[in-house]
Formats: sequence, C-alpha cells, structure tokens
Amino acid sequence: MANVAKKVSWSGRDRDDDEDGRAGETTPLLNGTGPGAAGGARQLTPSSFLRIGQLSNVDLNEDIHELQTELPRQRPNEIPHNEKLLSLKYESLDYDNSENQLFLEEERRINHAAFRTVEIKRWVICAMIGILTGLVACFIDIVVENLAGLKYRVVKDNIDKFTAKGGLSFSLLLWATLNASVVMVGSVIVAFIEPVAAGSGIPQIKCYLNGVKIPHVVRLKTLVIKVCGVILSVVGGLAVGKEGPMIHSGAVIAAGISQGRSTSLKRDFKIFEYFRRDTEKRDFVSAGAAAGVSAAFGAPVGGVLFSLEEGASFWNQFLTWRIFFASMISTFTLNSVLSVYHGNAWDLSSPGLINFGRFDSEKMGYTIQEIPIFIFMGVVGGILGALFNALNYWLTMFRIRYIHRPCLQVVEAMLVAAVTATVGFVMIYCSRDCQPIQGSSVAYPLQLFCADGEYNSMATAFFNTPEKSVVNLFHDPPGSYNPMTLGMFTLMYFFLACWTYGLTVSAGVFIPSLLIGAAWGRLFGISLSYLTKGSIWADPGKYALMGAAAQLGGIVRMTLSLTVIMMEATGNVTYGFPIMLVLMTAKIVGDYFVEGLYDMHIQLQSVPFLHWEAPVTSHSLTAREVMSTPVTCLRRIERVGTVVDILSDTSSNHNGFPVVESNPDTTQVAGLRGLILRSQLIVLLKHKVFVERANLSLVQRRLKLKDFRDAYPRFPPIQSIHVSQDERECMIDLSEFMNPSPYTVPQEASLPRVFKLFRALGLRHLVVVDNRNEVVGMVTRKDLARYRLGKEGLEELSLAQT
Amino acid sequence: MANVAKKVSWSGRDRDDDEDGRAGETTPLLNGTGPGAAGGARQLTPSSFLRIGQLSNVDLNEDIHELQTELPRQRPNEIPHNEKLLSLKYESLDYDNSENQLFLEEERRINHAAFRTVEIKRWVICAMIGILTGLVACFIDIVVENLAGLKYRVVKDNIDKFTAKGGLSFSLLLWATLNASVVMVGSVIVAFIEPVAAGSGIPQIKCYLNGVKIPHVVRLKTLVIKVCGVILSVVGGLAVGKEGPMIHSGAVIAAGISQGRSTSLKRDFKIFEYFRRDTEKRDFVSAGAAAGVSAAFGAPVGGVLFSLEEGASFWNQFLTWRIFFASMISTFTLNSVLSVYHGNAWDLSSPGLINFGRFDSEKMGYTIQEIPIFIFMGVVGGILGALFNALNYWLTMFRIRYIHRPCLQVVEAMLVAAVTATVGFVMIYCSRDCQPIQGSSVAYPLQLFCADGEYNSMATAFFNTPEKSVVNLFHDPPGSYNPMTLGMFTLMYFFLACWTYGLTVSAGVFIPSLLIGAAWGRLFGISLSYLTKGSIWADPGKYALMGAAAQLGGIVRMTLSLTVIMMEATGNVTYGFPIMLVLMTAKIVGDYFVEGLYDMHIQLQSVPFLHWEAPVTSHSLTAREVMSTPVTCLRRIERVGTVVDILSDTSSNHNGFPVVESNPDTTQVAGLRGLILRSQLIVLLKHKVFVERANLSLVQRRLKLKDFRDAYPRFPPIQSIHVSQDERECMIDLSEFMNPSPYTVPQEASLPRVFKLFRALGLRHLVVVDNRNEVVGMVTRKDLARYRLGKEGLEELSLAQT
Repeated sequence: MANVAKKVSWSGRDRDDDEDGRAGETTPLLNGTGPGAAGGARQLTPSSFLRIGQLSNVDLNEDIHELQTELPRQRPNEIPHNEKLLSLKYESLDYDNSENQLFLEEERRINHAAFRTVEIKRWVICAMIGILTGLVACFIDIVVENLAGLKYRVVKDNIDKFTAKGGLSFSLLLWATLNASVVMVGSVIVAFIEPVAAGSGIPQIKCYLNGVKIPHVVRLKTLVIKVCGVILSVVGGLAVGKEGPMIHSGAVIAAGISQGRSTSLKRDFKIFEYFRRDTEKRDFVSAGAAAGVSAAFGAPVGGVLFSLEEGASFWNQFLTWRIFFASMISTFTLNSVLSVYHGNAWDLSSPGLINFGRFDSEKMGYTIQEIPIFIFMGVVGGILGALFNALNYWLTMFRIRYIHRPCLQVVEAMLVAAVTATVGFVMIYCSRDCQPIQGSSVAYPLQLFCADGEYNSMATAFFNTPEKSVVNLFHDPPGSYNPMTLGMFTLMYFFLACWTYGLTVSAGVFIPSLLIGAAWGRLFGISLSYLTKGSIWADPGKYALMGAAAQLGGIVRMTLSLTVIMMEATGNVTYGFPIMLVLMTAKIVGDYFVEGLYDMHIQLQSVPFLHWEAPVTSHSLTAREVMSTPVTCLRRIERVGTVVDILSDTSSNHNGFPVVESNPDTTQVAGLRGLILRSQLIVLLKHKVFVERANLSLVQRRLKLKDFRDAYPRFPPIQSIHVSQDERECMIDLSEFMNPSPYTVPQEASLPRVFKLFRALGLRHLVVVDNRNEVVGMVTRKDLARYRLGKEGLEELSLAQT
Repeated sequence: MANVAKKVSWSGRDRDDDEDGRAGETTPLLNGTGPGAAGGARQLTPSSFLRIGQLSNVDLNEDIHELQTELPRQRPNEIPHNEKLLSLKYESLDYDNSENQLFLEEERRINHAAFRTVEIKRWVICAMIGILTGLVACFIDIVVENLAGLKYRVVKDNIDKFTAKGGLSFSLLLWATLNASVVMVGSVIVAFIEPVAAGSGIPQIKCYLNGVKIPHVVRLKTLVIKVCGVILSVVGGLAVGKEGPMIHSGAVIAAGISQGRSTSLKRDFKIFEYFRRDTEKRDFVSAGAAAGVSAAFGAPVGGVLFSLEEGASFWNQFLTWRIFFASMISTFTLNSVLSVYHGNAWDLSSPGLINFGRFDSEKMGYTIQEIPIFIFMGVVGGILGALFNALNYWLTMFRIRYIHRPCLQVVEAMLVAAVTATVGFVMIYCSRDCQPIQGSSVAYPLQLFCADGEYNSMATAFFNTPEKSVVNLFHDPPGSYNPMTLGMFTLMYFFLACWTYGLTVSAGVFIPSLLIGAAWGRLFGISLSYLTKGSIWADPGKYALMGAAAQLGGIVRMTLSLTVIMMEATGNVTYGFPIMLVLMTAKIVGDYFVEGLYDMHIQLQSVPFLHWEAPVTSHSLTAREVMSTPVTCLRRIERVGTVVDILSDTSSNHNGFPVVESNPDTTQVAGLRGLILRSQLIVLLKHKVFVERANLSLVQRRLKLKDFRDAYPRFPPIQSIHVSQDERECMIDLSEFMNPSPYTVPQEASLPRVFKLFRALGLRHLVVVDNRNEVVGMVTRKDLARYRLGKEGLEELSLAQT
C-alpha cells in the first residue's frame, strides 16, 4: 500500500515519506495546481539581494530518474552540487501542540494526580535513557578494546617476528589487509543497509534538535548499524573516534524508549503513548543526545549544554533538570560498569569513553604570562581547522560527484584503511625515535629496530587506538617524543583524518581532531621549552591539551558546550579560563575563513537549518516579502472530495492548511479560524469522519486523540485511503480537529520578528494575516532559512526539490 | 516636578515610579474612569476555582494612609499580610522590541560592519562586567578578612587574658558589644538609605531576570550599600555569608556599565546608548548575575546556569557565550588578585570567595553502596530545610506586622548580633572538647580551659567567619570534633541563621545553610563510622559535604545550577552524581512541605512572578477568561487632549494602548493596527509632536530614536508635561511610533498557550483579538501570574494595590 503511494509521490519530487507520510512543507497554493512555490513564483523586493542558484530543469529530471532506484541508493543524491540551495525535501518537526478540542478535552479530564504520573514517567524514561546509553557506550568500549587489542597483538607478534628475520613487507600486508577487511564490513553495512548511520551523526542530531526531520535518523536499525559500524571503524585503524557516534546512539535510544515502540522491530509496547508527538519526542531526544555526550566524555554538564546549544528553542527548567539527570545516570552507569570490568570495582575512574587523565593543577598549572601564548595557539588552531574544513569541503564535493555508488564508497573506505595502515607502518619504520620502555604507559610497545628495553616512539602514536594516543600525548613525561616524530605525525594524521571524515563509515571527528592538536601542541610546547631554555613552562602535556582544544575548536566551532566538555574531561576547573580563550580565538579565526565542519556538511545537504537569530541586516524584509502565497485554505465544513484533491495534489504537497469560515457563496478569502495539519486530515479520512451533505445535522463520528497518536509518526499517504465517489460528496466538519488558535503575524512584521516567534516557539507553520484577520500567506521553515548573511550582505538561497 | 506628579499618582495606589515614571501594568479600561481592573470587575468562569483573598476596602484605605509617608519607610508595607495576593505595584520589563518605523529605519541604516561594532561593544561590556565584579569580590574579601581578623584577635587576646585571671563575662561583653555596634552601622545604612539592599538580593535578581522591575534594584547606591552592608554583617559575626550579595552586586555593575551612565551619580558618559532598552539591559544583567555567582563560588559554569535557570526565557547561543565570558573573566580576576594579595602570585588557587578546598577522589571517593545513604541525607536535608523555611515564614510574618519601622529593624539586627555572640560564647565556654593544636588549620585557636597545646574545638565553629568554619568541617581530619560539639552547634546555628535571614542587613543565606548542613553531615558521618566500626566510609568530610548540599538544597531548592556550583566549588567531577541525587531528594522532600526560601519571600512580596509553565491543570481557561477587558484603545490619528486624559487617569495607569484604525464615526471597536506604550506617548507629548486639526496635511515634527533612548528608563510622568488648551485640540499621528505588529492571540487560545507565548518572548502586553482582528482584551503579566497550582488544584490570587 505504501509502495503505491510512494511511486505516485516520487513523480513530483524526491521525498522520503517513509518516516511519517507527510510531504513538503511548502505552503499550499490556493488553486492547488500551480507551479509550486519552489524557484520562480515568489515575489521579492529584489533591491539589494542576490538570488543565486535558480533551480534548473536538468537537475530536476536527473532527480526523478535517480528516484526510481532503491532508497539507500538515493543518498548521494541528497547532496546537491551547490551549497546555496535549500532542499524542499526536509520536513519540520512540530514543536507546537495542536490545541484542538480533542486535546483540550483530554487535558481537562486529566487531574493533578494524573499529571504527576506523567511527570514521573518522564523521569523514569530519562533514567532508562541514561542507563541504556551508558550500557551501549560500555559495549562499544569493551568490544573495541578487545578486538583492537587482538589485532594489535597479532600485528605486533608478526612485526616482532619479521623484524628479526627480515621481510617486514609481510607485516605491512597483514596490517593493511586486516584493517581493510574490517573496514570493508563496517562500510558495507552502512552503505547498503543504513546510509544515515554514516559519519558522526552530530550534524543529523543538530538538524533534528533544530526541528528538521531527517528520515531514519532515530530508528533502531540505525542504532545497530551505528554501533557495529563504529566498532569496526575504530578496530579497522581508521583515523576516527567512537565519541561522536555516541551522541547519535543516545538520541536513538531516547526516541525509541520514549515512544514505547520500535518501527524496525515492528513492536508496540503500548506504553508511554502520551509522549507520541513531536514536542515530547524532541525533549527526550535532547536528553538522549546529552546522555551520549556525557557517556562519551564523562561530561554530564557539557552534555546538557550541548543539547541546549543545539536544540533548545525555549529553556525550561524542568526539562533541563531531566536532561541533566539522564546525563548523570549515563556517565555513572558507564563508570560503574567499566570499573567492574576493569577489575577495580567502585573506584569510578572511567567517567567517559575517553578520559583525558588527571591534569594536576599543582604540577601543570599555568601562569598569566602564558595566556598570550595560549591565544596564539588558538589562532593556529583556527587556521589549521579552517584548512581542514576547506580540504574536507573539496573532498566532499568530489565525493558527491564521483563516489556516490555504495560499491565505490566501500572501496574508498577500504583504500583509506589500507593507506592509513601503510602510512603508519612507513612512519614507524622510518622513525629512529627510540624510548626506554620502563616507566612509560605504552600498551603495545613495538621494539622494531630499537635496542632491547626500548620501543619505537612513533608507534605509540600510530600503533594504538586514537584515544590512547591522545592520552599519551597529554601525559607522557617530557622527552617521550622527539620533535621530528611529532611533526611528521601531525602532518600525516592531519591529511588522513581529513580524508577519513565523510567516508561511508560510522565514525567521529572529535578524537582525530584532538589527536592532531595534541601532537602539534606538544611539539609547540617542546619548542617553547627549548626556546626558553626550560623555564617553568616546561610541561609539554599542558600545551598538548591547549593544542587539542585549539584544533578541535577550529574544526567544529562549538563554544560553551565544548569548553565545558573539555573542562570536565580534564577534571580541572582552573583550566577553564585558558580553554575558553583558546576555543574563542580558534572560532573567531576559523569563522573568518570557512564555516565549522558540521555546519558545512549541513549546508551541503541543503537542510533548512534555522540559526539562533535572523541575519542582522534583515530588518528591511517583512512577513509580506518572506511568506509563501497564495495559500490553499479549507473551509470549516468542507467537501470531502475537495480535501482529497488538495491532499493528493503532488505538485504542492502541503502539510498545514488554514481553516477559514465556511462561506461558499463569496470568493473572498474569509477570516482565519484555525489551522489543520495534513496528518490530521489523513486520520479523519481514514476513519471516515464525515456526514452526507443532506444530513448535515447528523453528528459526525467522534474520534479520540488516541486515533491520532496511534498513527504518529507514520501517517499513511493519502493515496492509500480509498474514498468512494459517494463519499466525495459528503461533508467533513473540521471544527473540533483544527487548532483554533494558530499563531499569526501581521504582514508588516519584520523578518527578525517573525523569525524570533517561529524559533522561540518551535513552529512549523505561521499564518500571515492582514488587518481583518484574513489569510494572506504562510511562513514555514524554508521561508526563514532561505535568508543568510553572506560575504556581500544578505543573500537568498534558492529552493530546490532535490 | 516629579514630586508633584508623585503626589497625584499616590492618591490611587502605592507605586514607585521613581525608576522610570511608568505606572501600573493594568490593562486600560475603555472609559478610563472605571473602578479599576483590580478586584471586582473581572468576569470569570467560576466553575471549579477558588477565589481567595478578595481585596478588602480596609486594606486599601490602610495603604493609602501609609503612602503619605516617605519612600523608604514604606518598605514594610510592601509585604502584604497575605501571600495569596498579587501586587499591582510591580512593573514588567519589556523584552520585546517595539519595532516601529523609527526603529526599523535605524536598523536598516546600520550596515553589517556597524552591527559588528555593536557586537564587539557587547563583548567589551561583558569583559568589564567580569573584571569589575571580580574586583568588588576581592575588595569584600580582603576587607572582611582584615576586619574580622582584627576583631577575632582583639577578642581572643581579651579571652586569653581573662581566662587566666577570671572574669570572662567582660570578654563576652566586649565580643557582644563589638558585634552589635558593627552590625548597627550595617543595619542603619540599609534601613535608612537603601532598604532594597537588605538580604541576599537573590530574590530581587530572580524577579528582575523574570521580567519584573523592582525599583532601585540595579542602582549604584544599592551597590555601595550592599557592599558596605555585607562587609559589616560578616564582620559583625552574624550567621551570614558574603556570597549571595555578590550576585546582586554583579547585576548592579552590569546594569551600570551597559547603560553608560549612573542615576545615583547623575553622570551620563554618552556611551553604549544603543543598549538603552530593557531587552539589552536584561541580557547584561544576566551576565552580571552570572559573574557574581562565578566570583562567589569560583563556578563560572554554575553562574551561567544560574542566570539561565532564573532568567532566560529564550536561549540564545551568543548571549550564553557572552555570559560565560563574563563569568570566566570574573573568577579569573578574583583569582589573580587574591593570589597576588596572598603573596603566592600566579598559583590561581582562589577561584571564588569561598573555596571548598580540594576533595581528592582517591582519598575521599565514594562507593555505590553509599548512594542510599546520601539519598537519606537528602531526605533529612529536605525536612530540615522545610523546617527552616517554615520558621522563617512565621518570623517574616511577625516582622511584617510588628517590626516595620527602620529603628526597630536596626534594634533587632543589633539584638541578633549580640545574641549570636552570646550563644557562641556560652557554647564555647561550656564545651569540653579539646583538640591538639598541632596539625590543625585553625585560624584563631582559643585555648580557654584546655590544656596547653590544645584548643577548644567548639571555637573553630563559632569563633571564625562562617566560610572558614565550613571548610574546616569539610577537611579537618577525623576526630577533630566530638559529636556533642557538632550536635549543639547544628542546633544553635540553625536557629540563629533562621532568625538572621530577613534582618535588615545585607547578607546571604548560602553559607549559613552550608554550615548547618556540614555540621550535621559530619555528625552523621561520625555516627555512621561508629556504627559500622570504622569501615571504608570513615571520612566524615565527605558526609559533611553531602550534608551541606542537602541542607542548602532543602532551603533554596535550586536544581541544575546548584549542582554545578557545588561540583565546581569542590573541583571534583565525580562528586556530581551524589550531589545531584542529594539535591534532587532534598528538593522533592522539601517541596512536599513548603516552598523554597527565595520563592517564599517573592510570594510574600506579592510579586507577579511567572514560572516556567502555566499550571498543568489550566487548560480549561482560555484567553477570554484570563484577559483584562475592556481595553482603552487609541485611534491612529488621535486628539492630543484624549491622549493626555487617558495618560492622566490615575484610576487605571496603563502602559500599553492598542492602536486601532481611525474611525471616529462609528462606535465599533475597529481592527488592531498597532500598540503604543505610555513611555512613547510621553515622549511624543513632551516634544510636542502634533499638528493642528485644520492642518492635518502638515507634516508632524520628526523624532529620532535617540529622543526615546535619552528618556529611558525614567520617562517623566504625564503631570510634568504641560499641554495647553489649544494644544489639546491638535491631532497626533501615532503611525510611525506605534509597533505595527504586536503579538496577538485569539480568544480561544488556552492559558498554557498564552502563557508560553508570553513567557517565551518576554512580553509585557499581549493583545487578545477576535476573528475580525478587533481588540477584545489585553493580557499582561499579572493576568498570568494570578493562576497558581495550590493544594486543592488551580487557585486564583487576588490583585491588590499594595
């Protein structure tokens, strides 16, 4: 049934209505058959704005062709070739409750005690989210540790064997083959089963929390692929971390638990049905993302701030407190389980997947004279981060054009794995940096050509999981690395990490960034110590930390949350001030050149992402210029046939319809009475909630809120609902289902004002009315996301169907 | 001039328009001469609601009588005798920009580069806020340390002298007299000069950030009195802390700097004029409050969270990042200056006014078995906190009734000071708990009747500033106190602290709460250790910390921010989980009995405080029932006389007027066109912006935004503006001054929906319109704050003029 529908709707545009059957947010056209709001039909005050990237027909045809293939295959196509486009494909979440009669009746029936039960359920769900996220993190950690340990032991034994008798190329072959085959599996499951599990998942979660629906992003299947994928990527020796994916994993867990059912498993546990709407679900997903950050870095406060920074449109004390609860439970679970696993139960020394180790403020304190140096490191981090992002941008464009078939993606991932192993091997082979084994914390000391009792220092960096390498760079005593080793490692790892990000594997960019930064930071510290002849600034570990912060800040450009995450990961509050300065500098410098990595990828996907504020210079635009017009309205008592026709209109595919007073005699658009959603209409049609025209006095069949909740979030497409010719002539009374008090703005409202209302309340539709409360237009997410502050002032993005 | 005006307006109601000349928020009546929206005139769906505390005429007459006295004398009267009242006296801040033509023209003229300058100015202001707040904290700390040191040395010498030769009652007399006289000065300046500087200032700042204007709260004079007052209170040996007042101090500093002028000094530095509106000012005050928390506890992240928890209606990433910046600068400044002062420059070991000292996770780690014990401590803390609050509630009621004259207030403060000293002395005298001096960290060891080389242990708790006592309780080795000492100390200090809070002195309740909690927590730890025969749970310092958290949580009931403050103050991330659990338990248990201390005092002041969400069971109310009606509207082109009459109407005193289409012929209320504020009308009248009726085609005088900004925030009262009889007949065109796109809601919107819109956007006026966009009512803060969830369901507070 769904397939039939899909084919029909594909004909018009690429949209994935598998998630909920809703289609394009585009505001409806009055006649329902117009050319679509996309592209040309908009009036604009053209004065000073650029209109870039008009939708060409060629692109559109290409899309339609591509769409005949299977779903996962479409992924490369999601990325258009021009970042100055806004895709119409993405849906909005609806953070605004539709307060129709049914909803109000239910709310009024619920007494105070019942509300308390609901509140307790919320806390229970948050606790479960925390526990499960912590357990998933444990699982990943333990499996990675064992598999990677196994791999490194096998390769080490092999190397040790062949070092003595020659023929190290066999070792290289073994290492590269092992890596490539492990990565192949990881890449295959992602490319062929669930492409949305690729990458760190942070851009996707950012979008989700921002209010954009990304298909499949919070599915159980995605979680499974993500977890397996990240294990295989890390074990496969890629320059990746397992921290970013935890955020995505936490979000999926939260979505799953809070809804009390799983689509992938096709199970409905019939619990938590009250939470089956976007508002509640997004709150829980925030908690899940926070729990993920918390488990990844042992940073519960950082997790909360991450969720708020990315998601919260409206700060709510209780919600924040619950998010914090989930975060705390998550890190505590991880900590307890890992402590037990490591045999020293109850010492609670592993709060996160990565622990930076202890930064003792007595031994590694900083002085005020060092602050300018840290700021300089921030500048370096900003520049290197911008370079990383720029290179990755070109690489991504290349991938979009040429590597969009899953097979090619798998091959590329294998190639990167093999090259990574080879580079590591060659570097280790060529390095002559030998260090005594005693007193060092190296897990797999490779002796190679070093004297007995010594190990190859380059191998601590390359022949190890990246997490361990980071900690080694932070804490190994001065003199553990020679500058040449660090320099070469930085250079190589920089390019490897850059190449790796964007591969079709599950993997995060946090740890590689930290590793690059820690390497050059330590190098910087050594140089400084050398220049100042070993003054108080001797400890290179401190500089490694600042370098790591600078590099990570330069790449991802997060602000408050990243500072707090770094503070919590170091477990030292006094480092807060320099870390903040470094991150701030890196962000300012980096922003001067290019955007942050996540924002860049979001933009490349043409997601209608809403930033915190409207562009500063957009006061000259008003709602009149921003809105989509004309609007398809429904009458309060409407003919069923008309409703079906409007919903079936593939050229528009709208989601919200203003309801106006029934006045069939005049052509005049009458005063706004309410707003009804496509999903609600679908449910009404499905349950045949209408009466014959002749019997208007008859009472329509009553529906319950449960009928709507059961259909959430995958409302069937209109094509799956059969409406007979007789039924088409019936009438449907929308009064009790529509939201009688939709938010409105007058036409004179400025864009920043409209933006603020839309963003603060997490809206999906905002009706623009004139002085007589008559509908003149509709503002949706894409109308606001279209305006962006470019280099030459305000610019307007084109809308594309892709 | 202002005096004349004041007299007139006092006749109707108690309002302090000294701050900005605006008056009651009450929505205007259509005829302007009605009986006032307060009390009787409201329609209500009475069905299931209680209407409690109808305003009696007796109360009103009493108020009017009282109001003839001088301003500071009125203070006791600010607290009505019934907490189920809502005062109409308090104004709202306006977080919504009035986007009239002038504003838009200015914004459109500003180009991108100019916006960047504005942004840079914001950062500079935040840095200045941080630095100044840090310096003020240093000043307080250093002065307190020296004065208190001096006092304790004098008293100690005296005691040592008289211990030998008998006659210790002289020492008691000296101690009590010293304390009482110092406190007298502190109390006099507060009671007679600036009563708003009393207490911790946290309730006032909470109200300000919530959007309620409290007169004088961010004045320079208040800051000076606050700083001197808190020094004198602490030196006077009261059971108070200097931390709470820092939050208030930071807020005043922020307000002062960001406005570039001082009313108290009557200086205008002509800088930062762009920031002269409520929106910007409140943002900076948030930063100041955060900087204050940060300086007080060395908790920059906690500071940010405090500001957000109390103030943010809409989370903005850039704003938060700036707040964090100010916080960091503040703690860093304090840290640097104090480090230099203490002689060990650059070691940066004093991040806050109180430092909990180092909690080493190795030595003082906790195990999972202890968690239920911590939760039990949370329960105890919740009960004790509720008891504290209940006692303080009765005491406050007593004070409202009988101790409302400044002289009496001063006498009470002196009495408390003398009693505190006496109790301390008697406790020390009676205690037989002697401890060896060696290895202990006691600042002023009192030998008294102990053997040589020993000191009286009770004296470490009483004969010391509370901050030092707290740290001693956390870190003194096991065995430093015997259980009897701790028990007696807890009991006495509990009552002393409870009596002290609410005195007319500047003082905080954080430290006394921590101290009480630390004492019983340590006692609890000792008992536990005794019961379990000294198992691993031996360290009583850990239990002192948890007890402190429990007690503080039980009293103030803060959530996320308090957890983070405690985490940062201990400098140990692993304690986060138990602290969170303890605080959560204490809050849940405490909330079962009474409200938090700050909320209680806010409620006793009848402030229209808006919580995060509307009461859960309020879906049955709609805007129609909540709004004030009828509304005084202005026509777009209005007669000057009408405007003057409306503004002069003392029985209403409204601040916002809907502007409707000019249609003088019909009596029908026409469609909404905009909203204009009292302050704007005042400026228009003052600048004589009107034309003769005969010459309507003439162009009105143009005003600039600067004219409005110069008048901010103290717009003159209408009575100070002379309008001649001829001028009364002129016409005034409001089109370019009114906000053409005020936010509106339909009558059907539910209370939670209205509440959400109002709160999320920080509104002051929300116009309720019907289906034809005609004005039917107005919702202001008091209309929403009136509904509260009581024990028996939704209850409605009465409105009072007091």
